[in-house]
Amino acid sequence: MTEVALSETGHPFDRALTLEEGRGEGVLTGNTDPAYSNMVGPFGGVTAAVLVRAVLDDARLLGEVLSLTVNYAAPIADGPFEVVATPVRTNRSTQHWTVSLTQDDVVTTTATVVTGVRRSTWSDTEAVMPEVPPAETVPPYTKLDFVAWARNYEMRFVTGAVPEPGTGPQPDSTTTLWVRERPSRALDVPALAALCDVFYPRVLRRRGAFVPAGTVSLTTYFHAGADVVAEQGDRPVLATAWAGAFGGGYFDQSARLWSSDGHLLASSHQLVYFKQ
Amino acid sequence: MTEVALSETGHPFDRALTLEEGRGEGVLTGNTDPAYSNMVGPFGGVTAAVLVRAVLDDARLLGEVLSLTVNYAAPIADGPFEVVATPVRTNRSTQHWTVSLTQDDVVTTTATVVTGVRRSTWSDTEAVMPEVPPAETVPPYTKLDFVAWARNYEMRFVTGAVPEPGTGPQPDSTTTLWVRERPSRALDVPALAALCDVFYPRVLRRRGAFVPAGTVSLTTYFHAGADVVAEQGDRPVLATAWAGAFGGGYFDQSARLWSSDGHLLASSHQLVYFKQ
Repeated sequence: MTEVALSETGHPFDRALTLEEGRGEGVLTGNTDPAYSNMVGPFGGVTAAVLVRAVLDDARLLGEVLSLTVNYAAPIADGPFEVVATPVRTNRSTQHWTVSLTQDDVVTTTATVVTGVRRSTWSDTEAVMPEVPPAETVPPYTKLDFVAWARNYEMRFVTGAVPEPGTGPQPDSTTTLWVRERPSRALDVPALAALCDVFYPRVLRRRGAFVPAGTVSLTTYFHAGADVVAEQGDRPVLATAWAGAFGGGYFDQSARLWSSDGHLLASSHQLVYFKQ
Repeated sequence: MTEVALSETGHPFDRALTLEEGRGEGVLTGNTDPAYSNMVGPFGGVTAAVLVRAVLDDARLLGEVLSLTVNYAAPIADGPFEVVATPVRTNRSTQHWTVSLTQDDVVTTTATVVTGVRRSTWSDTEAVMPEVPPAETVPPYTKLDFVAWARNYEMRFVTGAVPEPGTGPQPDSTTTLWVRERPSRALDVPALAALCDVFYPRVLRRRGAFVPAGTVSLTTYFHAGADVVAEQGDRPVLATAWAGAFGGGYFDQSARLWSSDGHLLASSHQLVYFKQ
Protein backbone atom coordinates (compact mmCIF):
# COMPACT_ATOMS: atom_id res chain seq x y z
CA MET A 1 0.00 0.00 0.00
CA THR A 2 1.30 3.38 -0.98
CA GLU A 3 0.74 4.95 2.41
CA VAL A 4 2.84 2.34 4.21
CA ALA A 5 5.70 2.87 1.83
CA LEU A 6 5.40 6.62 2.33
CA SER A 7 5.26 6.20 6.09
CA GLU A 8 8.41 4.11 6.07
CA THR A 9 10.28 6.51 3.87
CA GLY A 10 9.13 9.52 5.83
CA HIS A 11 5.64 10.92 5.42
CA PRO A 12 5.70 14.60 6.51
CA PHE A 13 3.28 13.77 9.34
CA ASP A 14 5.55 11.07 10.76
CA ARG A 15 8.54 13.36 10.40
CA ALA A 16 6.71 16.09 12.38
CA LEU A 17 5.88 13.56 15.12
CA THR A 18 9.40 12.20 15.51
CA LEU A 19 10.31 12.40 19.19
CA GLU A 20 13.60 11.46 20.83
CA GLU A 21 14.18 10.40 24.41
CA GLY A 22 15.00 13.36 26.63
CA ARG A 23 16.31 14.02 30.10
CA GLY A 24 14.32 11.47 32.11
CA GLU A 25 11.25 9.22 32.01
CA GLY A 26 8.36 10.78 30.12
CA VAL A 27 10.56 13.55 28.71
CA LEU A 28 10.88 13.69 24.95
CA THR A 29 12.36 16.18 22.52
CA GLY A 30 11.15 17.13 19.07
CA ASN A 31 11.37 19.82 16.44
CA THR A 32 8.77 21.89 14.67
CA ASP A 33 8.46 20.98 11.00
CA PRO A 34 8.21 23.72 8.35
CA ALA A 35 5.69 21.57 6.47
CA TYR A 36 3.18 22.19 9.29
CA SER A 37 3.65 25.96 9.72
CA ASN A 38 0.54 28.03 10.27
CA MET A 39 0.21 31.83 10.32
CA VAL A 40 1.92 31.95 13.73
CA GLY A 41 3.69 28.80 14.93
CA PRO A 42 2.68 25.30 13.85
CA PHE A 43 -0.80 23.99 12.92
CA GLY A 44 -2.59 23.29 16.21
CA GLY A 45 -3.54 19.84 14.99
CA VAL A 46 0.04 18.70 14.63
CA THR A 47 0.80 19.96 18.14
CA ALA A 48 -2.13 17.92 19.46
CA ALA A 49 -0.79 14.90 17.58
CA VAL A 50 2.70 15.35 19.04
CA LEU A 51 1.23 15.26 22.56
CA VAL A 52 -0.79 12.13 21.73
CA ARG A 53 2.32 10.52 20.24
CA ALA A 54 4.23 11.23 23.46
CA VAL A 55 1.60 9.43 25.55
CA LEU A 56 1.24 6.50 23.11
CA ASP A 57 5.01 5.97 23.07
CA ASP A 58 5.30 5.93 26.86
CA ALA A 59 6.07 2.51 28.36
CA ARG A 60 3.74 3.31 31.27
CA LEU A 61 0.67 3.66 29.01
CA LEU A 62 -2.55 1.91 30.02
CA GLY A 63 -5.08 1.36 27.24
CA GLU A 64 -5.97 3.69 24.39
CA VAL A 65 -6.48 7.43 24.15
CA LEU A 66 -10.04 8.26 25.21
CA SER A 67 -9.94 12.02 25.59
CA LEU A 68 -7.52 14.85 25.00
CA THR A 69 -7.57 18.52 25.98
CA VAL A 70 -4.88 20.80 24.58
CA ASN A 71 -4.50 24.41 25.69
CA TYR A 72 -2.57 26.60 23.27
CA ALA A 73 -1.00 28.90 25.83
CA ALA A 74 1.49 30.63 23.56
CA PRO A 75 2.82 30.36 20.01
CA ILE A 76 5.45 27.68 19.49
CA ALA A 77 8.60 29.10 17.89
CA ASP A 78 10.25 27.32 14.98
CA GLY A 79 12.83 24.93 16.41
CA PRO A 80 13.28 22.37 19.17
CA PHE A 81 10.79 21.67 21.94
CA GLU A 82 10.46 19.38 24.93
CA VAL A 83 7.39 17.30 25.83
CA VAL A 84 6.86 16.05 29.37
CA ALA A 85 4.14 13.39 29.79
CA THR A 86 3.24 12.29 33.31
CA PRO A 87 0.73 9.58 34.30
CA VAL A 88 -0.52 11.32 37.43
CA ARG A 89 -3.06 8.64 38.27
CA THR A 90 -3.35 5.03 37.11
CA ASN A 91 -6.51 3.12 37.99
CA ARG A 92 -7.56 -0.40 37.09
CA SER A 93 -8.94 0.54 33.68
CA THR A 94 -8.17 4.25 33.18
CA GLN A 95 -5.11 6.47 33.37
CA HIS A 96 -4.87 10.25 33.68
CA TRP A 97 -1.98 12.15 32.12
CA THR A 98 -0.78 15.71 32.28
CA VAL A 99 1.36 16.77 29.34
CA SER A 100 3.22 19.96 28.58
CA LEU A 101 5.20 21.31 25.68
CA THR A 102 7.98 23.74 26.56
CA GLN A 103 10.66 25.69 24.75
CA ASP A 104 13.65 26.84 26.81
CA ASP A 105 11.70 25.73 29.91
CA VAL A 106 8.84 28.12 29.10
CA VAL A 107 5.42 26.48 28.75
CA THR A 108 3.78 26.98 25.35
CA THR A 109 1.16 24.23 25.57
CA THR A 110 -0.56 22.31 28.36
CA ALA A 111 -2.66 19.20 27.95
CA THR A 112 -4.47 16.47 29.80
CA VAL A 113 -5.06 13.04 28.33
CA VAL A 114 -7.26 10.22 29.59
CA THR A 115 -6.37 6.76 28.40
CA GLY A 116 -8.15 3.54 29.24
CA VAL A 117 -9.19 0.08 28.29
CA ARG A 118 -12.28 -0.15 26.09
CA ARG A 119 -14.70 -2.86 27.22
CA SER A 120 -17.50 -4.61 25.39
CA THR A 121 -20.73 -2.77 26.25
CA TRP A 122 -24.00 -1.75 24.70
CA SER A 123 -23.26 0.61 21.86
CA ASP A 124 -25.18 3.00 19.67
CA THR A 125 -24.38 6.06 17.60
CA GLU A 126 -27.04 8.67 18.12
CA ALA A 127 -25.29 11.34 16.07
CA VAL A 128 -26.23 11.20 12.39
CA MET A 129 -23.61 11.16 9.65
CA PRO A 130 -24.29 13.93 7.11
CA GLU A 131 -25.63 12.71 3.78
CA VAL A 132 -23.03 13.68 1.23
CA PRO A 133 -21.86 12.70 -2.23
CA PRO A 134 -18.93 10.24 -2.46
CA ALA A 135 -15.52 11.82 -1.93
CA GLU A 136 -14.32 11.09 -5.45
CA THR A 137 -17.17 13.17 -6.91
CA VAL A 138 -16.17 16.30 -4.96
CA PRO A 139 -13.23 18.27 -6.37
CA PRO A 140 -10.23 18.90 -4.10
CA TYR A 141 -9.81 22.49 -2.93
CA THR A 142 -6.36 23.96 -3.34
CA LYS A 143 -6.79 27.66 -2.59
CA LEU A 144 -5.67 27.16 1.03
CA ASP A 145 -2.27 26.04 -0.20
CA PHE A 146 -0.76 29.40 0.69
CA VAL A 147 -0.80 28.10 4.27
CA ALA A 148 1.97 25.50 4.60
CA TRP A 149 0.14 22.98 6.79
CA ALA A 150 -2.95 22.92 4.56
CA ARG A 151 -0.83 21.51 1.73
CA ASN A 152 -0.63 18.27 3.76
CA TYR A 153 -4.37 17.70 3.49
CA GLU A 154 -6.59 16.84 0.56
CA MET A 155 -9.79 18.75 1.34
CA ARG A 156 -12.98 18.20 -0.62
CA PHE A 157 -15.59 20.66 0.65
CA VAL A 158 -19.15 19.40 0.39
CA THR A 159 -20.65 22.46 2.09
CA GLY A 160 -19.17 25.56 3.66
CA ALA A 161 -16.02 26.03 1.62
CA VAL A 162 -13.49 28.70 2.54
CA PRO A 163 -14.87 32.22 1.96
CA GLU A 164 -13.58 33.96 -1.12
CA PRO A 165 -13.85 37.59 -2.19
CA GLY A 166 -17.55 38.25 -2.68
CA THR A 167 -18.76 35.31 -0.54
CA GLY A 168 -20.20 37.68 2.05
CA PRO A 169 -21.56 36.81 5.50
CA GLN A 170 -23.23 33.41 5.87
CA PRO A 171 -26.10 32.56 8.24
CA ASP A 172 -24.81 29.05 9.06
CA SER A 173 -21.30 28.23 10.24
CA THR A 174 -21.33 24.58 9.19
CA THR A 175 -18.60 23.15 7.02
CA THR A 176 -18.54 19.53 5.86
CA LEU A 177 -15.65 18.09 3.92
CA TRP A 178 -14.01 14.86 2.92
CA VAL A 179 -10.41 15.03 4.08
CA ARG A 180 -7.31 12.86 4.13
CA GLU A 181 -3.61 13.40 4.18
CA ARG A 182 -1.72 14.49 1.09
CA PRO A 183 0.14 12.34 0.16
CA SER A 184 -2.29 9.79 1.52
CA ARG A 185 -1.38 7.93 4.70
CA ALA A 186 -3.19 5.26 6.73
CA LEU A 187 -5.17 6.84 9.55
CA ASP A 188 -3.99 6.33 13.12
CA VAL A 189 -4.94 7.95 16.41
CA PRO A 190 -2.39 10.81 16.27
CA ALA A 191 -3.47 11.61 12.70
CA LEU A 192 -7.11 11.61 13.84
CA ALA A 193 -6.20 14.00 16.67
CA ALA A 194 -4.69 16.35 14.09
CA LEU A 195 -7.66 16.07 11.72
CA CYS A 196 -9.97 17.29 14.48
CA ASP A 197 -8.35 20.71 14.04
CA VAL A 198 -8.38 20.75 10.24
CA PHE A 199 -11.31 23.17 9.92
CA TYR A 200 -10.76 26.82 9.11
CA PRO A 201 -12.24 28.98 11.93
CA ARG A 202 -16.05 29.16 11.84
CA VAL A 203 -16.01 32.94 12.28
CA LEU A 204 -14.51 33.28 8.79
CA ARG A 205 -17.55 31.61 7.32
CA ARG A 206 -20.04 33.67 9.31
CA ARG A 207 -18.28 36.95 8.46
CA GLY A 208 -17.51 35.84 4.92
CA ALA A 209 -13.99 37.18 5.28
CA PHE A 210 -10.63 36.43 6.82
CA VAL A 211 -10.33 37.66 10.39
CA PRO A 212 -7.53 36.79 12.83
CA ALA A 213 -8.53 33.70 14.84
CA GLY A 214 -6.79 30.91 16.71
CA THR A 215 -7.62 27.94 18.91
CA VAL A 216 -7.31 28.59 22.64
CA SER A 217 -8.36 25.17 23.95
CA LEU A 218 -9.20 21.95 22.09
CA THR A 219 -10.92 18.86 23.51
CA THR A 220 -11.37 15.62 21.56
CA TYR A 221 -13.19 12.44 22.54
CA PHE A 222 -12.01 9.34 20.67
CA HIS A 223 -15.03 7.11 20.18
CA ALA A 224 -13.40 4.50 17.95
CA GLY A 225 -10.75 2.08 19.10
CA ALA A 226 -7.39 2.00 17.37
CA ASP A 227 -8.55 -1.07 15.40
CA VAL A 228 -11.53 0.78 13.89
CA VAL A 229 -9.30 3.79 13.18
CA ALA A 230 -6.83 1.51 11.38
CA GLU A 231 -9.61 0.00 9.23
CA GLN A 232 -10.06 3.41 7.66
CA GLY A 233 -6.72 3.08 5.85
CA ASP A 234 -6.02 6.08 3.65
CA ARG A 235 -9.63 6.68 2.60
CA PRO A 236 -11.06 10.18 3.15
CA VAL A 237 -12.71 10.93 6.49
CA LEU A 238 -15.97 12.88 6.56
CA ALA A 239 -15.45 15.87 8.81
CA THR A 240 -18.09 18.37 9.84
CA ALA A 241 -17.84 21.42 12.09
CA TRP A 242 -20.17 24.11 13.38
CA ALA A 243 -20.25 26.89 15.98
CA GLY A 244 -22.61 27.66 18.86
CA ALA A 245 -22.00 31.25 19.93
CA PHE A 246 -19.71 34.14 19.05
CA GLY A 247 -19.00 37.14 21.29
CA GLY A 248 -16.53 38.88 23.56
CA GLY A 249 -13.66 37.82 21.32
CA TYR A 250 -14.33 34.07 21.49
CA PHE A 251 -16.50 31.39 19.95
CA ASP A 252 -16.96 27.66 20.36
CA GLN A 253 -16.59 25.18 17.54
CA SER A 254 -17.72 21.54 17.57
CA ALA A 255 -16.84 18.82 15.10
CA ARG A 256 -17.49 15.21 14.29
CA LEU A 257 -15.24 12.98 12.22
CA TRP A 258 -16.74 9.94 10.52
CA SER A 259 -15.06 6.97 8.88
CA SER A 260 -16.01 6.24 5.29
CA ASP A 261 -17.88 3.19 6.68
CA GLY A 262 -20.05 5.40 8.89
CA HIS A 263 -18.30 4.97 12.26
CA LEU A 264 -18.13 8.08 14.43
CA LEU A 265 -14.38 8.23 14.99
CA ALA A 266 -14.19 11.34 17.16
CA SER A 267 -16.11 14.30 18.55
CA SER A 268 -14.12 17.46 19.08
CA HIS A 269 -14.76 20.87 20.59
CA GLN A 270 -12.70 24.02 20.77
CA LEU A 271 -12.75 27.53 22.10
CA VAL A 272 -11.41 29.95 19.51
CA TYR A 273 -10.13 33.49 19.92
CA PHE A 274 -11.04 35.98 17.21
CA LYS A 275 -10.65 39.69 16.48
CA GLN A 276 -13.20 42.18 15.11
CA MET B 1 -33.42 39.32 47.81
CA THR B 2 -33.77 35.96 49.49
CA GLU B 3 -30.77 34.43 47.80
CA VAL B 4 -28.39 37.13 49.04
CA ALA B 5 -29.54 36.65 52.59
CA LEU B 6 -29.09 32.90 52.20
CA SER B 7 -25.65 33.37 50.71
CA GLU B 8 -24.58 35.53 53.60
CA THR B 9 -25.93 33.12 56.17
CA GLY B 10 -24.40 30.14 54.42
CA HIS B 11 -26.00 28.64 51.35
CA PRO B 12 -24.90 24.99 51.06
CA PHE B 13 -23.17 25.80 47.78
CA ASP B 14 -21.08 28.56 49.33
CA ARG B 15 -20.28 26.33 52.27
CA ALA B 16 -19.05 23.60 49.90
CA LEU B 17 -16.87 26.15 48.10
CA THR B 18 -15.24 27.58 51.21
CA LEU B 19 -11.48 27.47 50.72
CA GLU B 20 -8.79 28.50 53.18
CA GLU B 21 -5.26 29.64 52.39
CA GLY B 22 -2.85 26.73 52.39
CA ARG B 23 0.89 26.17 52.37
CA GLY B 24 1.97 28.71 49.75
CA GLU B 25 0.73 30.88 46.90
CA GLY B 26 -2.05 29.21 44.91
CA VAL B 27 -2.49 26.48 47.52
CA LEU B 28 -5.89 26.27 49.19
CA THR B 29 -7.54 23.78 51.48
CA GLY B 30 -11.18 22.76 51.64
CA ASN B 31 -13.50 20.03 52.82
CA THR B 32 -16.04 17.86 51.07
CA ASP B 33 -19.58 18.71 52.11
CA PRO B 34 -22.09 15.93 52.88
CA ALA B 35 -24.80 18.00 51.17
CA TYR B 36 -23.06 17.36 47.82
CA SER B 37 -22.41 13.63 48.16
CA ASN B 38 -22.98 11.49 45.09
CA MET B 39 -22.97 7.69 44.80
CA VAL B 40 -19.17 7.66 45.16
CA GLY B 41 -17.47 10.87 46.34
CA PRO B 42 -18.93 14.33 45.75
CA PHE B 43 -21.09 15.54 42.82
CA GLY B 44 -18.70 16.26 39.94
CA GLY B 45 -20.27 19.68 39.45
CA VAL B 46 -19.31 20.88 42.90
CA THR B 47 -15.74 19.69 42.36
CA ALA B 48 -15.61 21.68 39.12
CA ALA B 49 -16.96 24.70 41.00
CA VAL B 50 -14.31 24.36 43.73
CA LEU B 51 -11.57 24.46 41.08
CA VAL B 52 -13.15 27.53 39.45
CA ARG B 53 -13.45 29.18 42.87
CA ALA B 54 -9.74 28.57 43.49
CA VAL B 55 -8.78 30.35 40.26
CA LEU B 56 -11.24 33.22 40.76
CA ASP B 57 -9.93 33.83 44.28
CA ASP B 58 -6.30 33.94 43.17
CA ALA B 59 -4.70 37.39 43.29
CA ARG B 60 -2.80 36.60 40.08
CA LEU B 61 -6.02 36.14 38.05
CA LEU B 62 -6.30 37.84 34.66
CA GLY B 63 -9.83 38.30 33.32
CA GLU B 64 -12.74 35.90 33.56
CA VAL B 65 -13.05 32.14 33.21
CA LEU B 66 -13.36 31.25 29.52
CA SER B 67 -12.87 27.51 29.53
CA LEU B 68 -12.48 24.72 32.04
CA THR B 69 -11.51 21.07 31.69
CA VAL B 70 -11.79 18.82 34.74
CA ASN B 71 -10.54 15.24 34.76
CA TYR B 72 -12.04 13.06 37.46
CA ALA B 73 -9.03 10.82 38.03
CA ALA B 74 -10.22 9.12 41.19
CA PRO B 75 -13.04 9.35 43.73
CA ILE B 76 -12.62 12.09 46.32
CA ALA B 77 -12.94 10.70 49.84
CA ASP B 78 -15.09 12.48 52.42
CA GLY B 79 -12.87 14.95 54.26
CA PRO B 80 -10.21 17.57 53.64
CA PHE B 81 -8.52 18.26 50.30
CA GLU B 82 -5.92 20.59 48.88
CA VAL B 83 -6.25 22.60 45.67
CA VAL B 84 -3.17 23.90 43.86
CA ALA B 85 -3.82 26.51 41.15
CA THR B 86 -0.89 27.63 39.01
CA PRO B 87 -0.96 30.29 36.27
CA VAL B 88 1.55 28.58 33.99
CA ARG B 89 1.35 31.23 31.28
CA THR B 90 0.08 34.81 31.38
CA ASN B 91 -0.28 36.65 28.09
CA ARG B 92 -1.59 40.14 27.38
CA SER B 93 -5.25 39.12 27.37
CA THR B 94 -5.34 35.42 28.31
CA GLN B 95 -3.98 33.29 31.12
CA HIS B 96 -3.53 29.51 31.29
CA TRP B 97 -3.89 27.65 34.57
CA THR B 98 -3.23 24.11 35.70
CA VAL B 99 -5.18 23.07 38.76
CA SER B 100 -5.14 19.89 40.83
CA LEU B 101 -7.09 18.55 43.75
CA THR B 102 -5.21 16.20 46.04
CA GLN B 103 -5.88 14.27 49.23
CA ASP B 104 -2.83 13.24 51.27
CA ASP B 105 -0.69 14.34 48.31
CA VAL B 106 -2.43 11.87 46.00
CA VAL B 107 -4.05 13.44 42.90
CA THR B 108 -7.78 12.84 42.61
CA THR B 109 -8.61 15.54 40.05
CA THR B 110 -6.68 17.46 37.41
CA ALA B 111 -7.88 20.52 35.56
CA THR B 112 -6.87 23.23 33.16
CA VAL B 113 -8.53 26.63 33.09
CA VAL B 114 -8.21 29.42 30.55
CA THR B 115 -9.08 32.88 31.75
CA GLY B 116 -9.04 36.07 29.75
CA VAL B 117 -10.36 39.51 29.07
CA ARG B 118 -13.52 39.62 26.99
CA ARG B 119 -13.42 42.31 24.29
CA SER B 120 -16.17 43.98 22.32
CA THR B 121 -16.51 42.08 19.02
CA TRP B 122 -19.10 40.98 16.55
CA SER B 123 -21.44 38.59 18.29
CA ASP B 124 -24.13 36.11 17.34
CA THR B 125 -25.69 33.05 18.89
CA GLU B 126 -26.13 30.38 16.25
CA ALA B 127 -27.33 27.72 18.67
CA VAL B 128 -31.11 27.79 19.12
CA MET B 129 -32.71 27.84 22.56
CA PRO B 130 -35.25 25.03 22.89
CA GLU B 131 -38.89 26.16 22.83
CA VAL B 132 -40.29 25.21 26.19
CA PRO B 133 -43.10 26.17 28.54
CA PRO B 134 -42.29 28.68 31.31
CA ALA B 135 -40.55 27.17 34.33
CA GLU B 136 -43.41 27.88 36.70
CA THR B 137 -45.75 25.71 34.61
CA VAL B 138 -43.49 22.65 34.88
CA PRO B 139 -43.69 20.72 38.16
CA PRO B 140 -40.48 20.18 40.14
CA TYR B 141 -39.16 16.62 40.16
CA THR B 142 -38.23 15.20 43.53
CA LYS B 143 -37.64 11.51 42.91
CA LEU B 144 -33.87 12.08 42.63
CA ASP B 145 -33.79 13.26 46.23
CA PHE B 146 -32.35 9.95 47.38
CA VAL B 147 -29.05 11.31 46.01
CA ALA B 148 -27.82 13.97 48.43
CA TRP B 149 -26.49 16.49 45.90
CA ALA B 150 -29.68 16.44 43.84
CA ARG B 151 -31.58 17.85 46.82
CA ASN B 152 -29.69 21.13 46.22
CA TYR B 153 -31.31 21.62 42.82
CA GLU B 154 -34.86 22.38 41.80
CA MET B 155 -35.25 20.42 38.56
CA ARG B 156 -38.26 20.87 36.30
CA PHE B 157 -37.96 18.36 33.45
CA VAL B 158 -39.52 19.56 30.21
CA THR B 159 -38.41 16.50 28.23
CA GLY B 160 -36.36 13.43 29.09
CA ALA B 161 -37.08 13.02 32.78
CA VAL B 162 -35.24 10.42 34.82
CA PRO B 163 -36.21 6.86 33.81
CA GLU B 164 -38.56 5.10 36.15
CA PRO B 165 -39.59 1.46 36.34
CA GLY B 166 -41.38 0.72 33.08
CA THR B 167 -39.90 3.65 31.14
CA GLY B 168 -37.97 1.29 28.88
CA PRO B 169 -35.25 2.18 26.35
CA GLN B 170 -35.60 5.55 24.63
CA PRO B 171 -34.45 6.37 21.07
CA ASP B 172 -33.30 9.92 21.91
CA SER B 173 -30.94 10.82 24.76
CA THR B 174 -32.01 14.46 25.03
CA THR B 175 -33.08 15.91 28.36
CA THR B 176 -34.21 19.51 28.78
CA LEU B 177 -35.00 21.00 32.17
CA TRP B 178 -35.41 24.25 34.00
CA VAL B 179 -33.01 24.17 36.93
CA ARG B 180 -31.88 26.40 39.77
CA GLU B 181 -30.48 25.95 43.21
CA ARG B 182 -32.64 24.85 46.12
CA PRO B 183 -32.89 27.01 48.17
CA SER B 184 -32.57 29.52 45.37
CA ARG B 185 -29.31 31.45 45.03
CA ALA B 186 -28.15 34.12 42.57
CA LEU B 187 -26.20 32.54 39.72
CA ASP B 188 -22.46 33.14 39.51
CA VAL B 189 -19.70 31.53 37.46
CA PRO B 190 -18.84 28.73 39.92
CA ALA B 191 -22.54 27.86 40.22
CA LEU B 192 -22.80 27.80 36.43
CA ALA B 193 -19.77 25.48 36.29
CA ALA B 194 -21.58 23.12 38.66
CA LEU B 195 -24.87 23.30 36.75
CA CYS B 196 -23.12 22.08 33.60
CA ASP B 197 -22.85 18.69 35.33
CA VAL B 198 -26.42 18.60 36.67
CA PHE B 199 -27.74 16.10 34.10
CA TYR B 200 -28.20 12.45 34.96
CA PRO B 201 -26.07 10.31 32.60
CA ARG B 202 -27.52 10.03 29.08
CA VAL B 203 -27.01 6.27 29.02
CA LEU B 204 -29.72 5.92 31.68
CA ARG B 205 -32.21 7.50 29.36
CA ARG B 206 -31.24 5.41 26.34
CA ARG B 207 -31.31 2.16 28.35
CA GLY B 208 -34.36 3.24 30.34
CA ALA B 209 -32.71 1.99 33.49
CA PHE B 210 -30.07 2.84 36.05
CA VAL B 211 -26.61 1.65 35.07
CA PRO B 212 -23.36 2.62 36.77
CA ALA B 213 -21.90 5.72 35.07
CA GLY B 214 -19.56 8.56 35.98
CA THR B 215 -17.90 11.54 34.35
CA VAL B 216 -14.31 10.97 33.29
CA SER B 217 -13.55 14.38 31.77
CA LEU B 218 -15.66 17.55 31.64
CA THR B 219 -15.04 20.62 29.46
CA THR B 220 -17.06 23.82 29.71
CA TYR B 221 -16.88 26.98 27.62
CA PHE B 222 -18.26 30.06 29.34
CA HIS B 223 -19.88 32.23 26.68
CA ALA B 224 -21.42 34.83 28.97
CA GLY B 225 -19.44 37.34 30.96
CA ALA B 226 -19.84 37.45 34.74
CA ASP B 227 -22.15 40.47 34.32
CA VAL B 228 -24.59 38.53 32.14
CA VAL B 229 -24.40 35.57 34.50
CA ALA B 230 -25.23 37.86 37.43
CA GLU B 231 -28.27 39.29 35.59
CA GLN B 232 -29.83 35.84 35.81
CA GLY B 233 -30.29 36.21 39.56
CA ASP B 234 -32.02 33.20 41.06
CA ARG B 235 -34.30 32.50 38.09
CA PRO B 236 -34.22 28.99 36.60
CA VAL B 237 -31.69 28.27 33.86
CA LEU B 238 -32.77 26.24 30.83
CA ALA B 239 -30.42 23.29 30.55
CA THR B 240 -30.37 20.76 27.74
CA ALA B 241 -28.11 17.75 27.20
CA TRP B 242 -27.70 15.01 24.61
CA ALA B 243 -25.25 12.29 23.64
CA GLY B 244 -23.39 11.51 20.41
CA ALA B 245 -22.11 7.95 20.63
CA PHE B 246 -22.03 5.10 23.14
CA GLY B 247 -19.62 2.16 23.03
CA GLY B 248 -16.59 0.48 24.53
CA GLY B 249 -17.66 1.59 28.01
CA TYR B 250 -17.82 5.32 27.26
CA PHE B 251 -20.10 7.92 25.76
CA ASP B 252 -19.96 11.66 25.12
CA GLN B 253 -22.52 14.08 26.47
CA SER B 254 -22.96 17.70 25.34
CA ALA B 255 -25.01 20.40 27.01
CA ARG B 256 -26.08 23.99 26.63
CA LEU B 257 -27.23 26.24 29.45
CA TRP B 258 -29.43 29.22 28.62
CA SER B 259 -30.41 32.20 30.74
CA SER B 260 -34.11 32.86 31.15
CA ASP B 261 -33.55 35.88 28.86
CA GLY B 262 -32.23 33.67 26.07
CA HIS B 263 -28.48 34.18 26.47
CA LEU B 264 -26.33 31.10 25.89
CA LEU B 265 -24.44 31.03 29.19
CA ALA B 266 -22.28 27.97 28.62
CA SER B 267 -21.62 24.99 26.38
CA SER B 268 -20.34 21.89 28.08
CA HIS B 269 -19.09 18.48 26.99
CA GLN B 270 -18.09 15.39 28.88
CA LEU B 271 -16.81 11.89 28.41
CA VAL B 272 -18.68 9.47 30.64
CA TYR B 273 -17.75 5.96 31.73
CA PHE B 274 -20.55 3.41 31.91
CA LYS B 275 -21.02 -0.30 32.58
CA GLN B 276 -23.16 -2.87 30.73
